Amino acid sequence: MVRFFVAPEDLEREKVSLVGENAQHAKVLRLKPGETVLLCDGEGREAVCEVESTDGWLLHSMKRRESQSEAAIKVSVYMALPKADKLEHVIQKATELGAYEIVTFPSARCVSRPDEKSLKKKLERWEKIAASAAEQSGRGRIPKVLVLGSFSEALTRAAQADKALMFYEHEEALTLKMALSSGSYTTVSLLTGPEGGLEEAEVTQAREAGLQVCTLGKRILRCETAPLCALSAVMYDAGEF
Amino acid sequence: MVRFFVAPEDLEREKVSLVGENAQHAKVLRLKPGETVLLCDGEGREAVCEVESTDGWLLHSMKRRESQSEAAIKVSVYMALPKADKLEHVIQKATELGAYEIVTFPSARCVSRPDEKSLKKKLERWEKIAASAAEQSGRGRIPKVLVLGSFSEALTRAAQADKALMFYEHEEALTLKMALSSGSYTTVSLLTGPEGGLEEAEVTQAREAGLQVCTLGKRILRCETAPLCALSAVMYDAGEF
Repeated sequence: MVRFFVAPEDLEREKVSLVGENAQHAKVLRLKPGETVLLCDGEGREAVCEVESTDGWLLHSMKRRESQSEAAIKVSVYMALPKADKLEHVIQKATELGAYEIVTFPSARCVSRPDEKSLKKKLERWEKIAASAAEQSGRGRIPKVLVLGSFSEALTRAAQADKALMFYEHEEALTLKMALSSGSYTTVSLLTGPEGGLEEAEVTQAREAGLQVCTLGKRILRCETAPLCALSAVMYDAGEF
Repeated sequence: MVRFFVAPEDLEREKVSLVGENAQHAKVLRLKPGETVLLCDGEGREAVCEVESTDGWLLHSMKRRESQSEAAIKVSVYMALPKADKLEHVIQKATELGAYEIVTFPSARCVSRPDEKSLKKKLERWEKIAASAAEQSGRGRIPKVLVLGSFSEALTRAAQADKALMFYEHEEALTLKMALSSGSYTTVSLLTGPEGGLEEAEVTQAREAGLQVCTLGKRILRCETAPLCALSAVMYDAGEF
């Protein structure tokens, strides 16, 4: 079913007109009266609607419901700010894979250190990538993209999940499977380092903050591969596929 | 430990000189006599060597062994030929994630239809990407990249694995977890479609060839995301991390 992201208040109306990009999109798709479409508020609620008129793209709402395509667990991807367009890649893919949110933050070996102004611009771009990937993958929720100011802030926030996990290439004993199998979970944080990896002091700091430090196996993954590998495995473990 | 890929026969010698790119690399790394390095044959065997002399980069072999970083299971990634550089992306990432081989082939909705000459050039490039990713991720084996001539050839080959799986977005009943949990496995084939997806007739053909058709969850994954998600999950299931 074709889906349009609209403001949450539009979802409560009996009749809604599509405007702007949504109207453009409806025109391109040549929607006809009587066709069924989905309005999503981007926060996990949706309304099944019927096209009433193509003049002004008027829809009437038939049924409101929770999104059918969101994961039952909430997985937050915490990725230390990488260089170039790697975070864009991770935002797009993590959205497809069902991440609840994507959080970036500085760490000791981050090379990229954008100032506030350029960060604001980047954030706008990241949010657009998340929205577009959410639409393409049929999600009912657009994952939030958050930028935190410090590594310790990231740890404190990540530690609040049922499973708060950091991945470190020098960890060999604790596998992700071991970490996930001890007790049930509905919220998960997955924290990974930048290109140069995490420093040992950061790993110690993470443990002290309450994160479990795990391995992703015997091969060294690139910084943009690690979070997506971990996210795929967690979704699998949780029974999503 | 620093690793160099060499010809399999070099691994059998008592003394080996690094040449070409390997010698360049050794120079950049400023290796010193007495340092320990790893020679890999790219097929899963390796030799721990000591630098004897930096003049001609002479090494002497101390111990031959099986590679320590290869997965215990052999996962073959079968991906219908996508557009542009998507296969390059999948080859790089699948190599990091431990794939045994990457196989591409035409399917009904493939847009990319390179002729034999351009395919030969592409294959050379793909092999280089696999070799470079194997080196970076610390693998002892360079995954083979294979180009098959037809969809049915891909099915016949894929079907020989203990678990021969195709992923299809309209499948809802059989999850990857269900497919993997019925009986043990050491070889796995993961087959995915191109941008436009697989045709229903192809799915039927795959079932007839002996593949199980599975879902990767409620969200629609891009053609380059699906194989890597499935590969991550299989490696996780098999106890790799």
